[in-house]
This record gives sequence, structure tokens and C-alpha cells, in this order.
Amino acid sequence: MANRTRFRVRYPETDHMGVVHHSHYFTWFELGRTELMRERGHAYVDLERNGLFMPVVEARCRYHAPARYDEELEIETCVVAATRVRVEFAYRIHRAADGKLLASGTTIHAATDPQGVPKRMGPEVMKILGFDESGGKVAGGAP
Amino acid sequence: MANRTRFRVRYPETDHMGVVHHSHYFTWFELGRTELMRERGHAYVDLERNGLFMPVVEARCRYHAPARYDEELEIETCVVAATRVRVEFAYRIHRAADGKLLASGTTIHAATDPQGVPKRMGPEVMKILGFDESGGKVAGGAP
Amino acid sequence: MANRTRFRVRYPETDHMGVVHHSHYFTWFELGRTELMRERGHAYVDLERNGLFMPVVEARCRYHAPARYDEELEIETCVVAATRVRVEFAYRIHRAADGKLLASGTTIHAATDPQGVPKRMGPEVMKILGFDESGGKVAGGAP
Amino acid sequence: MANRTRFRVRYPETDHMGVVHHSHYFTWFELGRTELMRERGHAYVDLERNGLFMPVVEARCRYHAPARYDEELEIETCVVAATRVRVEFAYRIHRAADGKLLASGTTIHAATDPQGVPKRMGPEVMKILGFDESGGKVAGGAP
Repeated sequence: MANRTRFRVRYPETDHMGVVHHSHYFTWFELGRTELMRERGHAYVDLERNGLFMPVVEARCRYHAPARYDEELEIETCVVAATRVRVEFAYRIHRAADGKLLASGTTIHAATDPQGVPKRMGPEVMKILGFDESGGKVAGGAP
Repeated sequence: MANRTRFRVRYPETDHMGVVHHSHYFTWFELGRTELMRERGHAYVDLERNGLFMPVVEARCRYHAPARYDEELEIETCVVAATRVRVEFAYRIHRAADGKLLASGTTIHAATDPQGVPKRMGPEVMKILGFDESGGKVAGGAP
Repeated sequence: MANRTRFRVRYPETDHMGVVHHSHYFTWFELGRTELMRERGHAYVDLERNGLFMPVVEARCRYHAPARYDEELEIETCVVAATRVRVEFAYRIHRAADGKLLASGTTIHAATDPQGVPKRMGPEVMKILGFDESGGKVAGGAP
Repeated sequence: MANRTRFRVRYPETDHMGVVHHSHYFTWFELGRTELMRERGHAYVDLERNGLFMPVVEARCRYHAPARYDEELEIETCVVAATRVRVEFAYRIHRAADGKLLASGTTIHAATDPQGVPKRMGPEVMKILGFDESGGKVAGGAP
């Protein structure tokens, strides 16, 4: 079950080529996974308060068509894989007006404590992510 | 004695109007005060390590002419006033090629501990800033 | 009549002090005036398509209390003054949860053509802004 | 022949985890390729003035260790492949103080006109990139 979140392109996200600068898509990916976790009942900020951080260890994006100022976009986010020490999210960004695919990408995250030391995610976090502790998909879970 | 630091405009600092977005000048002001303090022998990062933070309580910028991608700019930074709990910096940004004034502004900072609680700056920090403890300018100090 | 728009603090808007970096408030101010104009029936992007640009000539912000990651904020935006060549907006940003005032500020804008040459705003734009051509407030208009 | 460029981490590039936000590495990659082209005698801004744009069609980064505020970093940039319609750059970012590898990545670019329509790069641009028109490496060229 993917999360779908809508937002608008902000002025400073554009560059002098007249379109959104490619670096901002990674900020939007973050927006997508934040809303996916909130939708499943656990704000990412609460995981951090409980001592679990999920720094990005790899990020990738393919750009299919440009996004422009003030356009409404929709980001679709899902969890594609998760083990107790690693999670992978996938994203697709569409223009809301016509559904055109603008970008797609993935991010891979490690689970760490506040000091960046690797840490195992507990079963309750695995369940939010839609996977069981062995990395198998939970019925009714993601994606 | 003002600090002068040169840097180039980065691509994502421009917006679709073809010039630098106004929000980035505040990042450049920060660059200016970081280099002013480094030039005077104390990196701001070291003040933080010693428990002194200087959050911005007021910021202001006037925009005289636009900056464009890849232009080399020079920021001139000085301390205009300082007491043990408050510092004001002033900035002027020129285009290096012809000296044209692009922007000018000020920031006012409080002195706090890491939790944001007000704190008095010690005499050694006041000296870096070019002022004595009463807020009077030190001979040979700033600006 | 002020516009009120809600949004959440994004992760990269925070800095290593643990709070939102002061430069991002100017991006939020822009969000506020974009939504104010949309609410009044004219997206700013349409003004640009019709050849009217409104670059910032002065910006100012006072910071009252810090904003943190994932907090929901509300920005209140109004037009405080407008002539055919100049507009001033004022902003107040509150934390949605408890209404605490976090920041307040103003931006002053010139009216220009796409090349940055000063231009007079037409009566229809003045009306959106809630002022008549002489700079007097229109009944039922802003603020 | 790789280009090596040094720069310092700016305050707003850090996030509340205390380290640089992953999205900013893509801005640094851009800094690296801008300096590579300048070193080879052609500022990217001049290519744009001559009607050649190089939008990013794919970007990827692996994060090995965090970067922190005010650290001096070195980015090493090289061209790994180029045809008349496509260029691939590779990057490695090290901490200057101890040479530790912090991140590595690649970006793939299309060649387009100002409207985003695909366009073939001329032999003089191919030569800057260190490749001949068939995609073969030029003696003495990159990487």
C-alpha cells in the first residue's frame, strides 16, 4: 500500500533553467516517506525520540520530465524491502494535473542510534514498514 | 576591520527568474560572519563546542541589484555592536568583477547555551568581536 | 483579510542546532504570499505569465521562538501597503499546536517586467492586493 | 585527469541529526563539475550562453560517513563517459583533514537546447569532456 501525498513546487526550488533543480527531489522523497510513516500511525519524529534514526546510505533518482513553479505534484511512496538493519523506499512523482511521471527513485536507509551506531529495528517498527523480522512481507502490509 | 570573503553563486541558488533567490543572501551573511570569526582566530564551531550558541533573533536584507549563476561575489562583514548578551553584524555584498553593490543587511544574535537559554559571553569572545564588556569598541578591534 | 496557510517543517529545513535555520522563514513568507494571491483568485504564476514580476527589494524577520522538525505551522499573510510600483506584505508564523508566535516579518516588492525594469501594476492587480490605484485601501480588501 | 576542489560545509547544510543532509551532496557534485569544466577552459555558464544545456537525467549517491559543519571537504570529479548526446560524471568527496571518504556518486546528463529539446554536442565540447565524437577517450583527456 503506497502512500500518496500532494504538495506544490516552491519558488526557490526552481533554478535559472526555469525548472526544479534536481537536488530538491530528494527532499520530496523525504516528505513522501515521512507521510507514509505518519499514515501508518508512527511519525518518524517519534522514532527519533525513541532513539531510532534512519540515515540515508544510498539515494538515486531518474528524471523523466521537468517540474515547474507552483505545479501541484503527487508523490507515491512505498517500502520495497526491509530487514532489521536496513530499509529501502521507492518513489514516483507525478504532475497532479495530467498524471505525467516526472521522476522516480529509491533511497536505502540504515537503522542507527542517535550517535550513528548501527542498531536493530524492533518488531513494532518492522510492522509499520510492512515486513516481519525475517524480511518477509506482512499480510496487508507494504508495498 | 571588516572581513572580506569571496565565493561563487551556485546553480541551485538561482530561481526561475534567472537570478539568485533572496533567501540565499542570509546563508551568505552566515558565511561572512563565520569567516570573520575564523580570521580573528576563533572558528564559530569552537564557540559551539564550548557551549556558546549565537542564534539569529533578527535578520534584514536590502536587495540593490541581482546576482547571477557563477558570478564571483565578495561579502564584507563587520561587527557593528556587541554587548555580553547580544551582537549585531552588518554585511555588504558586491559583484567582484566590477564592485557593484548587490545587497546589504544586518543580523542580530543572542548569546545562548545549547538549550537556547540566554547566556553572557565571556571577555575572550567580546575581544574577538572587537568590543569590551561594556559594549565599547576595543582599540584595533571591529569594525 | 489575512490568508492563513498551514504546512509542516521539513527535515532539511532544520540545522545542527536542532531547530529550523533562519533562512527558511523567507521561503515560508513566499509560500504565504503565494497562497494569499491564489485565495484572491490570481496565482502569482499567472501574473508572471502576463509579464509582471514582483522581486523582493527588502526582507526582514524577527525570530521569537524556534520551530522544529515535523511541527505544523500556520503562516498568516496580509498586504500592508501597495502603490502601483511597490507592495509590502507582513507575516506572522505560529505553531499550530498551541498558537505560539514563532516569527514575524515583512517583505517589500517592486513591480517589474521580466527583465527587471520597473513597471506599473494595473488596476486589476491593485484590486487583488486590496488597494486602489492611489494606494488607498479598497473596502472589503486587505488587510 | 580529475578536478579537485575544496570547500567548507555551511551551517544550513546540516540538519537536526547534527550532520549534513543527504540532499546537499548533489549540490556539491554540481560544484565539482562546474570547476572541472572551468579548469578545462570552459565555464558551464558559457556553454549555456551558447545554447547548450546539460540537465541531469539520473543522479546517484552513496554515503559512507557523515560530513559536519565547517569541515573542509575535497570533491574529486571526473568524466567517465561521453557521447554527443549524453555525459556521465563521477564524484568522490573526502574530508580534507584526514582524507576519509565520505560519499561517492554519479550523475548522467543529456545535452539539450534552452527549451529542453535534445541536441548534439559539438566537437569542441566533446574535447573539453576528454572524449572524441565516437565516445572514445582523447589522449591526455579525462579521466
